[in-house]
Amino acid sequence: MSTCSSDLAPLFGAVAANATGAASYICGQFESVSLQFVDAGYAIDSTYLLFSAYLVFAMQLGFAMLCAGSVRAKNTMNIMLTNVLDAAAGALFYYLFGFAFAFGAPSNPFIGKQFFGLKKLPQTGFDYPFFLYQWAFAIAAAGITSGSIAERTQFVAYLIYSAFLTGFVYPVVSHWFWAADGWASPAKNLDQDLLFRSGVIDFAGSGVVHLVGGIAGFWGALIEGPRIGRFDRNGRALILRGHSGTLVVLGTFLLWFGWFGFNPGSFLTIFKSYGPSGSIHGQWSAVGRTAVTTTLAGSVAGLTTLFGKRLQTGHWNLIDVCNGLLGGFAAITSGCSVVDPWAAIICGFVSAWVLIGLNKLAALVKYDDPLEAAQLHGGCGTWGIIFTALFAREKYVNEVYPGRPGRPYGLFMGGGGRLLAAHVVQVLVIVGWVSVTMGPLFLLLRKLKLLRISAEDEMAGMDLTTHGGSAYAYHDDGDETTNHHGAVPAPFRPSSVPAKVEPITTQV
Amino acid sequence: MSTCSSDLAPLFGAVAANATGAASYICGQFESVSLQFVDAGYAIDSTYLLFSAYLVFAMQLGFAMLCAGSVRAKNTMNIMLTNVLDAAAGALFYYLFGFAFAFGAPSNPFIGKQFFGLKKLPQTGFDYPFFLYQWAFAIAAAGITSGSIAERTQFVAYLIYSAFLTGFVYPVVSHWFWAADGWASPAKNLDQDLLFRSGVIDFAGSGVVHLVGGIAGFWGALIEGPRIGRFDRNGRALILRGHSGTLVVLGTFLLWFGWFGFNPGSFLTIFKSYGPSGSIHGQWSAVGRTAVTTTLAGSVAGLTTLFGKRLQTGHWNLIDVCNGLLGGFAAITSGCSVVDPWAAIICGFVSAWVLIGLNKLAALVKYDDPLEAAQLHGGCGTWGIIFTALFAREKYVNEVYPGRPGRPYGLFMGGGGRLLAAHVVQVLVIVGWVSVTMGPLFLLLRKLKLLRISAEDEMAGMDLTTHGGSAYAYHDDGDETTNHHGAVPAPFRPSSVPAKVEPITTQV
Amino acid sequence: MSTCSSDLAPLFGAVAANATGAASYICGQFESVSLQFVDAGYAIDSTYLLFSAYLVFAMQLGFAMLCAGSVRAKNTMNIMLTNVLDAAAGALFYYLFGFAFAFGAPSNPFIGKQFFGLKKLPQTGFDYPFFLYQWAFAIAAAGITSGSIAERTQFVAYLIYSAFLTGFVYPVVSHWFWAADGWASPAKNLDQDLLFRSGVIDFAGSGVVHLVGGIAGFWGALIEGPRIGRFDRNGRALILRGHSGTLVVLGTFLLWFGWFGFNPGSFLTIFKSYGPSGSIHGQWSAVGRTAVTTTLAGSVAGLTTLFGKRLQTGHWNLIDVCNGLLGGFAAITSGCSVVDPWAAIICGFVSAWVLIGLNKLAALVKYDDPLEAAQLHGGCGTWGIIFTALFAREKYVNEVYPGRPGRPYGLFMGGGGRLLAAHVVQVLVIVGWVSVTMGPLFLLLRKLKLLRISAEDEMAGMDLTTHGGSAYAYHDDGDETTNHHGAVPAPFRPSSVPAKVEPITTQV
Repeated sequence: MSTCSSDLAPLFGAVAANATGAASYICGQFESVSLQFVDAGYAIDSTYLLFSAYLVFAMQLGFAMLCAGSVRAKNTMNIMLTNVLDAAAGALFYYLFGFAFAFGAPSNPFIGKQFFGLKKLPQTGFDYPFFLYQWAFAIAAAGITSGSIAERTQFVAYLIYSAFLTGFVYPVVSHWFWAADGWASPAKNLDQDLLFRSGVIDFAGSGVVHLVGGIAGFWGALIEGPRIGRFDRNGRALILRGHSGTLVVLGTFLLWFGWFGFNPGSFLTIFKSYGPSGSIHGQWSAVGRTAVTTTLAGSVAGLTTLFGKRLQTGHWNLIDVCNGLLGGFAAITSGCSVVDPWAAIICGFVSAWVLIGLNKLAALVKYDDPLEAAQLHGGCGTWGIIFTALFAREKYVNEVYPGRPGRPYGLFMGGGGRLLAAHVVQVLVIVGWVSVTMGPLFLLLRKLKLLRISAEDEMAGMDLTTHGGSAYAYHDDGDETTNHHGAVPAPFRPSSVPAKVEPITTQV
Repeated sequence: MSTCSSDLAPLFGAVAANATGAASYICGQFESVSLQFVDAGYAIDSTYLLFSAYLVFAMQLGFAMLCAGSVRAKNTMNIMLTNVLDAAAGALFYYLFGFAFAFGAPSNPFIGKQFFGLKKLPQTGFDYPFFLYQWAFAIAAAGITSGSIAERTQFVAYLIYSAFLTGFVYPVVSHWFWAADGWASPAKNLDQDLLFRSGVIDFAGSGVVHLVGGIAGFWGALIEGPRIGRFDRNGRALILRGHSGTLVVLGTFLLWFGWFGFNPGSFLTIFKSYGPSGSIHGQWSAVGRTAVTTTLAGSVAGLTTLFGKRLQTGHWNLIDVCNGLLGGFAAITSGCSVVDPWAAIICGFVSAWVLIGLNKLAALVKYDDPLEAAQLHGGCGTWGIIFTALFAREKYVNEVYPGRPGRPYGLFMGGGGRLLAAHVVQVLVIVGWVSVTMGPLFLLLRKLKLLRISAEDEMAGMDLTTHGGSAYAYHDDGDETTNHHGAVPAPFRPSSVPAKVEPITTQV
Repeated sequence: MSTCSSDLAPLFGAVAANATGAASYICGQFESVSLQFVDAGYAIDSTYLLFSAYLVFAMQLGFAMLCAGSVRAKNTMNIMLTNVLDAAAGALFYYLFGFAFAFGAPSNPFIGKQFFGLKKLPQTGFDYPFFLYQWAFAIAAAGITSGSIAERTQFVAYLIYSAFLTGFVYPVVSHWFWAADGWASPAKNLDQDLLFRSGVIDFAGSGVVHLVGGIAGFWGALIEGPRIGRFDRNGRALILRGHSGTLVVLGTFLLWFGWFGFNPGSFLTIFKSYGPSGSIHGQWSAVGRTAVTTTLAGSVAGLTTLFGKRLQTGHWNLIDVCNGLLGGFAAITSGCSVVDPWAAIICGFVSAWVLIGLNKLAALVKYDDPLEAAQLHGGCGTWGIIFTALFAREKYVNEVYPGRPGRPYGLFMGGGGRLLAAHVVQVLVIVGWVSVTMGPLFLLLRKLKLLRISAEDEMAGMDLTTHGGSAYAYHDDGDETTNHHGAVPAPFRPSSVPAKVEPITTQV
């Protein structure tokens, strides 16, 4: 007999014809109502999570357009093919084992070991919408990396490293920080200890996604070396302009659009009250606040970059503003759910300078990253991880990660240094893990002569040499000559040798 | 007196001051709660359906970009105008009569006959979100067809056939398979017989949408004949490259994005438990699974195409991968809700070879379809219809199409051959219906000299001859000469005669 | 003791062991269920509002692409930078004070005065999703204006006027018509009088957004004067073709997509029954109907434009169809929720002719607006405001703006002239307010020589002179010479002087 019945029956008392019967009838009805709310919760939360997943998927389109616009026209097909394959191959690998490595439970603190091929799904907490959402995340990391090594990497190298990254390196990291079993999870079962009694609060993945992708890209770009012409004979950095600012803006806006799925969507559910029912204080409000912090951080980072670069270069640079925006988003991704909107402004402001500074540094040390991906996702991502440990607010931390009274929060908010300690550990561990896995892989590929394309191919562009032709054929209006533009020339002959070419324009 | 009251009153018994009154009061409250759940259901399901409709609408943008990128620059405005008008004219026609033909109920097995001009809406099962969703579907079929006959069709021919297709041919087919009154519906009222005691399971329309559009396109392209230069003097197929790979990728990703509305959205509702309330097993989970099967089929088809074409051509072809992906989506559309994820992988794998094979065949028989639309939507769509009849799982079939115990399911899953029989009928009937309606129409248009543009116009491009000018004017930086590029020349004079022109590049 | 308990206890009567206890126990359960519905409402409505906000945000991307495609290639970076900054600077300003001016309550009829920096959020009716939604609206108005003055405005002028418009002019207008305290609100507290006992029904902002943006743009464009070459020596209007029809279509479709968030989303909630629970009649249905009226108005306007322009010019013009569509959307935005679908068709039909007529007039008086923004958003927006006052249906008006029995509705629907009177006031007041704020600002900027760029810069294009280089560099395939294309030339020298250049092509 339910609590309801045992409470209610005595109130009716013996005089009612069938007090127990009446009570259990009524309570059965209430029980049924309660279960209908469970159903409603599934329906609402699944709708919320699925459409968030679709938005995150739209980021892959955003990446494709951003990357395409940021490279030279001759490598457009190449970079877009990697973006398409990130999604397609990612779907297969993540279905087969990636999701299992990441979230398979019960498991151990290091790696998951259930749900291979989605076996045992659906079950509570592990339904198909959750898989879809996590797949959309998984493919983002690979996309970051392919930006770093754009315009000079053999296609077969891409196939190998991206499979390894999406299928193993990334899922393991996400297990550590996001699975309930993960050693650094902030939301373990109550009988388990948290790292520094805190765990890492990497809400939507400044570390798990952006830092992972950025560090992988860093090693790739470092080991490959700069593109031909990126630094002149005197070692000065020169800009190899991307071929379409329009595509860069298209990509940036799509990423912004998708980030509303990435950050607010990471709550996974929205039908959850914080405290007694019937008040405005619930996950719906926290979700909205997260969308606001995300928007503010990116916006302020973009504005800061606009004026910062104007002071440096004398013009109002759109591409820099776009990258600044994205850096702000990458930074706020860690703490978006646990900081106030005013703090997000600080996050974005600092993030802009982190990116500007790292780009200066990269030029200085002759590191070439066509998409600034290591600086942006790695650098701003790292700042975001630290920022969260400084500005996380007590109330929000306890609402988003409930059940652990007295847990630490932001250092500057009076929450002590334990969260910061955990976050420093996160940065170190991610940098270490990705370095020891991806670094040797890139070295091995280089050793096997599978990593970098030849100088001739690099000058000619990969679209002609590897992908069957140029992305563009604008001139075809009945003129036979121009119709051959965009064709696959046979035999192929690069128009110049690399040594004497400096396809470069402005100094940084 | 409700069941609740008549059950509860005796339990209170005569001794309660007013047993009947108490019971009916309490039960009235439960009734009110129950009705609030109905409201919640409307709110949740309408939200779900509306946003799914918006995603499907985004596919129209995807089509526009895919088509634009796949044709030569000189026909860009033309093809995009058809995509815009598919949506706009489709809205008017579908409002006036298309929706009525498709879903007007009660009606007969062949064609609907209510709801002209949305009269009698809203009513249960026929609310505005449902109309919007079905409109978004209706315009897709026309989009497929305009791809097949791109670059050589008179604009007035487009206006005529697309009105006929969207306003009549397609709605009738959707009535047969999707309306409860339709003769081949799998979800009729329980007193009505199902075709082969099964009905056709074409969940989101591999047949109703893709095969219809593909067959219509096939007849159009066949009757028009190939574009000038598509086959050389020796009959060898040559590739007329589309003008922008970037637009193809943009379109493909947008279509993928929109397919999450097309397939999972076809459940129409999400707040529905399968079995007792309170468990994970409900439409929300099936919806998620459908998103997963969709993703896997497309992804595997894309990957298969990547390696398959690499073996054939020696390079990694992005455009082929995009078409492969879309073929996988078109194939899984029929069975997405009733098959397991592993089966979706098979679906996608076979779909890739269907498309590769049909493209080979098309080149052999000198059939020219600029978007591969007949091969892709017709061919892969047909495969998808058969695939469903082979791999539909009993449990899912009964959950998605409930109330008919013992209904057949996939042949390979032990469900017998009746579903397959129904699906073979579907293929034959759709091919027949579209052929006898659209075929004569295209022949009539040809007879009236309204179908194909002149050779001069084809060489010059339709944007200049019909649409007031080129889509592009990139060179305008203060140089007077280049500023005239992209202008409407008056008088217009094609720059060469077609006979001596071979604007062609590579052999297939 | 609740009503439920006081009703129920006597029914149990004195003989029940504890009638009051039983009653209050049962009623407490019902109270708890009722509060869970409140929670469900927050979850559903927040999901609905957030995703609507994301769609409205996508319109900013649509604007960026539409604007980019509509200007010449040499000003692409410039116009897109304004679109990006509308969103970014808008986020900061709207967070700091714009939202407070618009919706801060309690306040006065003229301007809001709470919620600066989102202080006191969340509270009932003012949660974060609502802020995000209103931010997405706020940035649209600035986007409209930057279209009117494209290709000739100093960047610093943009920074100044757009901050003023988004931060002050627009929020004040939205307060008047949309805040419960606003002097012209149709939904005030019941003890407050409505303007003409009606208030203004500007549901999603034909006036508040489109007319505001259009009038601001009108003054800017008028004060700046036409672009060089827009009118020839004889005063004939010439077309300065935008550089990419593809981008125009991309932008138009994205705006259409986003309008599903703009119009249906303006209900803010979807979980609300009209009348007794359990029937189809509720906000979910009205939301769907609003999506349908929106679609029909835009579609019919596009179709009307297609045939109307064909008669005038002899060709089928895609760009005109796109602008026609958008004009139809701008017109229906005011009345979308309170008119029938058939009325939306009238709205769209007239809207097309309004735009065609105003464009003729603009050419006649030598007014140059590169995006037709004043004509489209101002002209069609005004028509939409009047249209609503003519066709608003009694039933819908009372459902959407409840609690005021006998309120006026459309003149042609038998609702009297009071709504029309209020709407005429709206038009006059908006035109007046925007004119007295933005007009002097543009004049001041001109006085300070901050408004218009030099003729040399205008000929060269702003991308080269102000933004660090061209948006495009298509020709980079290994050829050293073409690689310099798209570079920042140093020193910069315009290739021709404006006086002798007529970069013009066709007469209107």
